[in-house]
Amino acid sequence: MQDLLPAATGLRARFDRIRQATVDFAAPLSPEDCQAQSMTEASPVKWHLAHTTWFFETFVLGRPKGPLAFLFNSYYESLGGHADRARRGLLTRPSLREVLEYRRRIDEEVVAKVLNAETSDETIGRVELGLQHEQQHQELILTDVKHLFSLNPLHPSYAPAPASDGAAVAARDGWVDHPGGLVEIGSGGPGFAFDNERPRHRRHLEPFRLARRPVSAGDFLEFVEDGGYRRPELWLSDGWEAVRREGWQAPLYWDREGGDWQLFTLSGRRTLHLREPVCHVSYYEADAFARWAGARLPGEDEWEVVAEGSPVEGNFAESRRFHPSAAVDPGTARPIQLFGDVWEWTRSPYAAYPGYRPPSGAVGEYNAKFMVNQIVLRGGSCATPQTHARATYRNFFPPYARWLFAGLRLAADRDEGR
Amino acid sequence: MQDLLPAATGLRARFDRIRQATVDFAAPLSPEDCQAQSMTEASPVKWHLAHTTWFFETFVLGRPKGPLAFLFNSYYESLGGHADRARRGLLTRPSLREVLEYRRRIDEEVVAKVLNAETSDETIGRVELGLQHEQQHQELILTDVKHLFSLNPLHPSYAPAPASDGAAVAARDGWVDHPGGLVEIGSGGPGFAFDNERPRHRRHLEPFRLARRPVSAGDFLEFVEDGGYRRPELWLSDGWEAVRREGWQAPLYWDREGGDWQLFTLSGRRTLHLREPVCHVSYYEADAFARWAGARLPGEDEWEVVAEGSPVEGNFAESRRFHPSAAVDPGTARPIQLFGDVWEWTRSPYAAYPGYRPPSGAVGEYNAKFMVNQIVLRGGSCATPQTHARATYRNFFPPYARWLFAGLRLAADRDEGR
Amino acid sequence: MQDLLPAATGLRARFDRIRQATVDFAAPLSPEDCQAQSMTEASPVKWHLAHTTWFFETFVLGRPKGPLAFLFNSYYESLGGHADRARRGLLTRPSLREVLEYRRRIDEEVVAKVLNAETSDETIGRVELGLQHEQQHQELILTDVKHLFSLNPLHPSYAPAPASDGAAVAARDGWVDHPGGLVEIGSGGPGFAFDNERPRHRRHLEPFRLARRPVSAGDFLEFVEDGGYRRPELWLSDGWEAVRREGWQAPLYWDREGGDWQLFTLSGRRTLHLREPVCHVSYYEADAFARWAGARLPGEDEWEVVAEGSPVEGNFAESRRFHPSAAVDPGTARPIQLFGDVWEWTRSPYAAYPGYRPPSGAVGEYNAKFMVNQIVLRGGSCATPQTHARATYRNFFPPYARWLFAGLRLAADRDEGR
Amino acid sequence: MQDLLPAATGLRARFDRIRQATVDFAAPLSPEDCQAQSMTEASPVKWHLAHTTWFFETFVLGRPKGPLAFLFNSYYESLGGHADRARRGLLTRPSLREVLEYRRRIDEEVVAKVLNAETSDETIGRVELGLQHEQQHQELILTDVKHLFSLNPLHPSYAPAPASDGAAVAARDGWVDHPGGLVEIGSGGPGFAFDNERPRHRRHLEPFRLARRPVSAGDFLEFVEDGGYRRPELWLSDGWEAVRREGWQAPLYWDREGGDWQLFTLSGRRTLHLREPVCHVSYYEADAFARWAGARLPGEDEWEVVAEGSPVEGNFAESRRFHPSAAVDPGTARPIQLFGDVWEWTRSPYAAYPGYRPPSGAVGEYNAKFMVNQIVLRGGSCATPQTHARATYRNFFPPYARWLFAGLRLAADRDEGR
Repeated sequence: MQDLLPAATGLRARFDRIRQATVDFAAPLSPEDCQAQSMTEASPVKWHLAHTTWFFETFVLGRPKGPLAFLFNSYYESLGGHADRARRGLLTRPSLREVLEYRRRIDEEVVAKVLNAETSDETIGRVELGLQHEQQHQELILTDVKHLFSLNPLHPSYAPAPASDGAAVAARDGWVDHPGGLVEIGSGGPGFAFDNERPRHRRHLEPFRLARRPVSAGDFLEFVEDGGYRRPELWLSDGWEAVRREGWQAPLYWDREGGDWQLFTLSGRRTLHLREPVCHVSYYEADAFARWAGARLPGEDEWEVVAEGSPVEGNFAESRRFHPSAAVDPGTARPIQLFGDVWEWTRSPYAAYPGYRPPSGAVGEYNAKFMVNQIVLRGGSCATPQTHARATYRNFFPPYARWLFAGLRLAADRDEGR
Repeated sequence: MQDLLPAATGLRARFDRIRQATVDFAAPLSPEDCQAQSMTEASPVKWHLAHTTWFFETFVLGRPKGPLAFLFNSYYESLGGHADRARRGLLTRPSLREVLEYRRRIDEEVVAKVLNAETSDETIGRVELGLQHEQQHQELILTDVKHLFSLNPLHPSYAPAPASDGAAVAARDGWVDHPGGLVEIGSGGPGFAFDNERPRHRRHLEPFRLARRPVSAGDFLEFVEDGGYRRPELWLSDGWEAVRREGWQAPLYWDREGGDWQLFTLSGRRTLHLREPVCHVSYYEADAFARWAGARLPGEDEWEVVAEGSPVEGNFAESRRFHPSAAVDPGTARPIQLFGDVWEWTRSPYAAYPGYRPPSGAVGEYNAKFMVNQIVLRGGSCATPQTHARATYRNFFPPYARWLFAGLRLAADRDEGR
Repeated sequence: MQDLLPAATGLRARFDRIRQATVDFAAPLSPEDCQAQSMTEASPVKWHLAHTTWFFETFVLGRPKGPLAFLFNSYYESLGGHADRARRGLLTRPSLREVLEYRRRIDEEVVAKVLNAETSDETIGRVELGLQHEQQHQELILTDVKHLFSLNPLHPSYAPAPASDGAAVAARDGWVDHPGGLVEIGSGGPGFAFDNERPRHRRHLEPFRLARRPVSAGDFLEFVEDGGYRRPELWLSDGWEAVRREGWQAPLYWDREGGDWQLFTLSGRRTLHLREPVCHVSYYEADAFARWAGARLPGEDEWEVVAEGSPVEGNFAESRRFHPSAAVDPGTARPIQLFGDVWEWTRSPYAAYPGYRPPSGAVGEYNAKFMVNQIVLRGGSCATPQTHARATYRNFFPPYARWLFAGLRLAADRDEGR
Repeated sequence: MQDLLPAATGLRARFDRIRQATVDFAAPLSPEDCQAQSMTEASPVKWHLAHTTWFFETFVLGRPKGPLAFLFNSYYESLGGHADRARRGLLTRPSLREVLEYRRRIDEEVVAKVLNAETSDETIGRVELGLQHEQQHQELILTDVKHLFSLNPLHPSYAPAPASDGAAVAARDGWVDHPGGLVEIGSGGPGFAFDNERPRHRRHLEPFRLARRPVSAGDFLEFVEDGGYRRPELWLSDGWEAVRREGWQAPLYWDREGGDWQLFTLSGRRTLHLREPVCHVSYYEADAFARWAGARLPGEDEWEVVAEGSPVEGNFAESRRFHPSAAVDPGTARPIQLFGDVWEWTRSPYAAYPGYRPPSGAVGEYNAKFMVNQIVLRGGSCATPQTHARATYRNFFPPYARWLFAGLRLAADRDEGR
């Protein structure tokens, strides 16, 4: 137990900081803003605030049947039922004020019963899982609020516009080469990693190259103006069906007004900046762009072997820009913006690593049951907390999803680079 | 103009009273409650508060293009676009506070520019229309909040439970006979009536009888227990399809817990009271019940000729019971509960009266364009303002609608009475 | 029994003739043509051939549980189940040949056991009902085949093109006036009438006028070219929603090729003829046209009192034109083309007449359970057998239906005629 | 060119044989059977007969714009439009007879202009592709007819029931071990392979084991009886949603009658045989079964390295059993029934091999554009032509598809075998 004290002490500080950060992300929002659910895939901010608390109540305090459990369980089938996901926006009671009170109550209890008490390793692990989970929902708050606000003809703003990117110089284009061969990916270390990042294992890669920077809005605009959204030969069959069914003509949050492209951001609506990474494209659009560009998307293994060892630095939620920034050239040949700015679609379907076993019990539902019909994204975005990002991190979304902060970086076989 | 002063003065008092009543109906609700939209057919309370104000701004002040017009226009196509009806719950801005401020601003302007000024007859007519419209939305606020709260597993309560109906004695069953013949229905007088109540005109009726009281929850429970929801021969074809598609097994807001029937009301969930009128049935259910009972629904003309001349008294929104009351026998042979308690489904499709002409301009869209696929209801409910009810009033809803406060009263041809 | 012989003898001849006519209507079609079902509302020709036979087997021979009953029952819930209506086109067995053999077998049995035997009045009545039912399905065969062929890019032809209408002279425009007052409608006589045409009863009508001829394709083209399909103020709310959801821009089977309007007919695709009655419009389109024209649709009672007494003559299925013909002016002031050519939408929702009682037993489902969400049409079309038409006949379809041979005739209040 | 003669001569014989086989597969079917389309994913047999012919007309004869091209193009966007896939069953013209005549005409032309003439290697390659494509559609004919017949309450039979499996002895259960390591998969040889089987490339595998035989109906019945379809913890999230939405309770074509399980086969309906491989399960069901069994599905790479070198023998379409057979133990430790009987779901999402490039031109659409949202199956089924199967062959279907002849074989990590 002595050994745990320092860890637990550090954990206490992180617990306070991370739990408070969630409340801070909700601070610019009214009770009404926190109530609305803009689509089934998104959740009300109030629900995020409550669900993350329910997670601690259930998995750390061991009370999976509290009076609010039915309301704020997300998808854990083994915990006995949850409210209809599409109707989270209809739960007007408890109120935002009551949910914030619920947070305080559970936080005090976690501190008193767990963080300031003798605690098993397993429980400490559950607190850590709860904090990682909390950070995921911090990003979802920003992601979902952006979608909600985008549907309001008044174009509300969540945060002041960030200082201009004007000083940025263009990133040198170009590729980073990798020789392929037998490599290792996945998390093998003692630090926190989700179950789906494990076990560390070997893969054989062919030689490849990875673009030095993400695709920019200006790059993507060329695709749009070259008729990219009207040329079926550039698209996967399911992607082309989505284009036609949904009427896609540009990335989400772009709209043309007269000759100008406008963009909706968390700081309201403004002109499109060509030098910033393109954001809010689906996998289908990322894939079609890559085909149009004569390249392809990277495998998640390719992405990871390049990113491994790079410092996890960049434009994260802590910058409070809440929007990807134009690339700044560091003057070296290293790839830039691997972390932060935009999640990068890979070409890898989300699947279990060889030897993967989900944890037993309800937490086994955290990741494993989603391993079909989803695509892996890597690197983190301007809405991700910096301490939540790492080279082995596997985010995943269905290929049609556009409302997350997602862009792309090109890859190529070694003999096909431009 | 002199003549108008008294009317306008009375109008001023009614304007103040009715506009305030809407705010009062919203008073028990939080900003969150006022934000949510439980289904496409329902609207958020905040929207009702804003839309009724937009109505005055547009039709009385003559400013159809104010900055909020796009948000709070309901369905007036000739006024240039309106926000998607299914997404009213996503308009988190303006806030409830701002909408209430918008109400105050427009009210002051209406008083200053119209009610305290020289005003044309047409404008006075528009104010009157605005007040009648306001009262319709008062009932919708109660109707929509009930639906919203019913979906919350916490069963919230809007108002304290009314005093018990315990002292009520059973209404004498029985029928009121009418000889038929050439009659007149519709509004012909100088008092306010919607365009769809005019012109007064002649109809020929066969002899008929009308039940002395509405069908009670106890009556309806017999139908349920006799397998009413499992016997296709009792139903219209479209009704039977609705039963199967929606899984109806009882009226809306009824649910069986063990052997007991529970009811959700605006005062929360409680045991079903058998003596109160059945409420929240669709036209399909009302029609099936009548067939099962060996009777039929009345025509709207039959209902009106019986109701004409009766005092407009009963259990209206002013009672603040917000639920139909068990019948109290007045000791006479007159029909009871014609007004208030529950809207009564007739068998009359909603159609124009002979000689009907919609008003010109955008107000012509108020009623006329809905004259298909709807059924007429008569009499008003426990959620209707008393001053809004009259014998000629025609409410209308699609035959599958259940969330309004609707029940039924039986009728029969003279030779078929039970 | 002696009395029945002449009637039964005449019935035998009609039975032979009408049953054979159904087979004749199918003669130009291949087994493939008879198999396909173009939409849920339409049925395969093979199914029509079998279902009409099942009707005799069930209701005349009294064998409701034959081996094919489940397949060829349409909607009689009291007869124990029926195959999914949307999947009738998937019943490839029994084959067309087998269904025709089934027809012959049942026909022989009906003749031997009923028509050539001692038979009760009730059974004779069932044979008559079966023949009237058969004639309804003859029209449906033509209606459904037209829809099926219209979806084939090869534009198949069912019948040779009729001789040109070139010699026709324009019908005099104008109105036929009626003074209104107390009238009688419905069938009161001894001849066959469906239950829904009874009882004959009194109505009070206001003075009105009825157009001398149906609206022509040329009339309707003016509406199209005047932006009729782009002006919401002309439409019922549900109609406007249909226009937008379905992308309607003209009547069904019209398409514009370059500057020319083409029409798909049962004799293939050809140029639109302006002088023939417009056909294949929904109630919504008929209603919008009437509003645009400053008129309205007639009530079914208005239509009937004008048509009563007129000879049932015109362009029926027997002409084998299978398309409405341009009006020929008879040189009198009488209305023309009341019968045949196109069914005429009225403004009357389909409802029970006062005193109506459905027959007992399964035949009670024939008409009664459809008395909601449908609109009455009158007069018969170029696809109706002539002996099936009469002034009291009530056809009915949902307001969005377009694939039947339906047009319209204008009406007006007496003080508003053009 | 001399060199090609022998190949071309052999090709001529294969061309005749394979093209004739398609017609033979349709021989037991009526024109009605060949017309119907049971769901969007299935096609009418007549369409298969025509589309495979169109393929030769387009890609071998170089006439992509023939008069039937619009009707019988499947999904080649670069060839200018195709009829709505969901409506193939409505194309009653051309008739089956005309389609068979179209086949003969194109066959003669291919023989005269290509097979009996001087021909480029590329054209020979296109003929080969056309034959492989033809064989795929032979299997689809059987697959789609089975689905169509299963919906007919008469339970039609396509072929006589095969001789009983009674003599079969139980296959020894057990596993085949593989050490893993650096392996090669994919087609590298000169023989025909689809583009998606290339290039041959290296992979690194962990040690694993593969079940000696496919999962049997008896095995699967244990899962059913253990509540497999009612236990969410066994399912992928999307799979569980499918279970609830579709009401799955057992594999497709199973139904319980009293206490007995019945099975619909291409020889009609009969009792379930426990010893034959389970068939007509989706990926979701295969995955849930494997989890229940404490095992997993194999990777496609694992399957291929075990199958490579095994003779391509088994129960294929040529056996005319059209149903998987109970295992016969060969008395060795080798895996059995790898080829034929049932396609085996792997856990591999369908994706491009490293270095994959689609062919240029319209044939590039053959496989590449489907590389998302699909899962790979291996081995071939009782409906696959034997000459069409090979160890490197990659079949693919969406994870919810059940109507193909698909079962599964278990795999396990080396340390977890049962």
